[in-house]
Amino acid sequence: MRKVAIIGIGMTKFGNLWDRDLVSLSVEAGMKACHDANISQEEVEALYGGTMSGGLFVNQEHVAALLGDFSGLKNIPCTRVEAACASGGLALRQAYIDVASGMHDIVVAGGVEKMTDIGGAAVTKTLATAASQEWEAVYGATFPGLYAMVAKLHMHKYGTTEKQLAMCAVKNHKNAVYNPFAQFRREISVQDVLNSQKVADPLNLLDCSPITDGAASVILASEKKAKKLCKKPIWILGSGHAIDTISLHDREDITTLKATVEAAKQAYKQAKLSPKDIDCVEVHDCFTIAELCAVEDLGFCKKGESGKFIESGHTQIGGSIPVNTSGGLKAKGHPIGASGIAQVIEAVLQLRGEAKGRQVDAKIAMTHNVGGTGGTAVVHILGR
Amino acid sequence: MRKVAIIGIGMTKFGNLWDRDLVSLSVEAGMKACHDANISQEEVEALYGGTMSGGLFVNQEHVAALLGDFSGLKNIPCTRVEAACASGGLALRQAYIDVASGMHDIVVAGGVEKMTDIGGAAVTKTLATAASQEWEAVYGATFPGLYAMVAKLHMHKYGTTEKQLAMCAVKNHKNAVYNPFAQFRREISVQDVLNSQKVADPLNLLDCSPITDGAASVILASEKKAKKLCKKPIWILGSGHAIDTISLHDREDITTLKATVEAAKQAYKQAKLSPKDIDCVEVHDCFTIAELCAVEDLGFCKKGESGKFIESGHTQIGGSIPVNTSGGLKAKGHPIGASGIAQVIEAVLQLRGEAKGRQVDAKIAMTHNVGGTGGTAVVHILGR
Repeated sequence: MRKVAIIGIGMTKFGNLWDRDLVSLSVEAGMKACHDANISQEEVEALYGGTMSGGLFVNQEHVAALLGDFSGLKNIPCTRVEAACASGGLALRQAYIDVASGMHDIVVAGGVEKMTDIGGAAVTKTLATAASQEWEAVYGATFPGLYAMVAKLHMHKYGTTEKQLAMCAVKNHKNAVYNPFAQFRREISVQDVLNSQKVADPLNLLDCSPITDGAASVILASEKKAKKLCKKPIWILGSGHAIDTISLHDREDITTLKATVEAAKQAYKQAKLSPKDIDCVEVHDCFTIAELCAVEDLGFCKKGESGKFIESGHTQIGGSIPVNTSGGLKAKGHPIGASGIAQVIEAVLQLRGEAKGRQVDAKIAMTHNVGGTGGTAVVHILGR
Repeated sequence: MRKVAIIGIGMTKFGNLWDRDLVSLSVEAGMKACHDANISQEEVEALYGGTMSGGLFVNQEHVAALLGDFSGLKNIPCTRVEAACASGGLALRQAYIDVASGMHDIVVAGGVEKMTDIGGAAVTKTLATAASQEWEAVYGATFPGLYAMVAKLHMHKYGTTEKQLAMCAVKNHKNAVYNPFAQFRREISVQDVLNSQKVADPLNLLDCSPITDGAASVILASEKKAKKLCKKPIWILGSGHAIDTISLHDREDITTLKATVEAAKQAYKQAKLSPKDIDCVEVHDCFTIAELCAVEDLGFCKKGESGKFIESGHTQIGGSIPVNTSGGLKAKGHPIGASGIAQVIEAVLQLRGEAKGRQVDAKIAMTHNVGGTGGTAVVHILGR
């Protein structure tokens, strides 16, 4: 397999973008990524696009061909991939495999979701299509409800507190202040989180990532092209992807996301690295409890110790392993298909030294994107 | 890139399968493919699944993880791809790139659609999400209507007749009699087609492929594994994939599917073959006119001459280039995401000499899968 680098990045503002559609968001992100890579779209040889549910959100399937068409990518292969909230990470991975295989030299990987064209209840119902319809959603299970069960067991088994959960959201909001593309650029307090409306006990509104529109794109290149085109190529050192049971009730322990453990194992093995080598990480904090599980499952602390780990400041900027310097899904926003690519953009910015105001000292960065309650996980390790 | 072979095939009966669901269909096809390849599912290292709209047909996204879970594929990468009606062909292509890259040695590529859980009008509306919502579907355009425009222009420019269109359907029904998995195993006459209900002038009901449930799977392997495991590996000699404008009105000539031309060019080039080398082909006959365009765009006759070409018997079993020996989408049935894989299964059966009753003398076979009105095309060339 050939070496592959990221040579360009681009994203839209994340937020409630009522005057924008799927196409305009995607084209903006893609054009920005081409501009950043200093290439024209004619040089792009293939496209991989991640989106969770064009069908239910905006009544549009066949999304990759549509976006390729409107981006002026004439007659090249354009592929949509989907793994619920991990669709963006999966688009990166398939683009990586494509370039690594020798099939193409310059490939764009993008992610997009337009969530606000339907009402809040319809969004919740659409997101529930990431769970098993037959065994979970049909009984009324929603994602806040499913993650609340994970949180309850984590608290019961390990003494994790609501305050520790809240501290994830507080940190991520603090980081997002410095991210011009983030949906919520304001600090919140632990008390704000604890006082916010109960969504699914023990999760409050401010434990939950928001409903968001947005798109993000990155340009991948083979080693030869990357060295020719780019002064600061960021290398993909490891790629991992795994599934687990789609339903929580089929798992031995719902506080461990086996898909994360397995995907991380693959990525660490390929990169010949271990958790202590990672300088910063973007994890999939769709709910605060998800960030706690991720910090454990990726190997940054022992199982059950993430509450204290976070409380001690290890995951803050300046801590031993800064987590979600971008603001995370919680504060940057969570346009489902775009989130996995936006994580990679943050990793690239940190590795390039361009993460103004939130910069950490990073030679190696990791991204972690989850579908559903861990039915899918995609992990990448990037390096300068 | 490494050489890749198909070492196992499996599919369900195609039809109105009201007692079956997405999961049971997929598992049946996958298990049959594993059985045919003489491997257990534990030996499968990755899954690629094509489905058009789990969301709108059965309210289920995150389909690859779900199917991987219920197939007992523990913690391996499972990826859903989507390109409307070309989703199955695309699943094969992504699995091919994966094995060719060296990432995995044994990979399953599957396709599935469960279309009959919603009513006919909802099916038509769901299929229309493969067209541009903004420029086509919102004005009431449906796929029969869009392909009818292609047919009208083909008739106007080249003198193609309704009888010539009908002859495609008649041939495909005749072939399907010998395919035990086909939805319609009965012969029809040209007069039956011409007398059937008008759907969108000039297309009658029997010019149109049906609404179908079904699943199909194939097992791909690296050269080393294929030679070890399989007596009759079928090699993937060429793979092509291209987009075109998603909307008909943006094209210079709607009787040519540029995506088909370009995807075929890629596949011929990689395989170092030309149309005269192909012994049989499965083309995407969602409507009879689509088969006429495909025969031209793949290079089997000149543009505009497909009507006479078909009338002269060239595309029949025993003709110079047998087309849709399986019965095609028209008579075998068209469970959207499964069709591209079912085409490949027919090619494999022909190349193995196992296409009982409809066998042709074939060393090289081609498959051609289209999304929408040609927004996407995927072409593969297979050989013994």
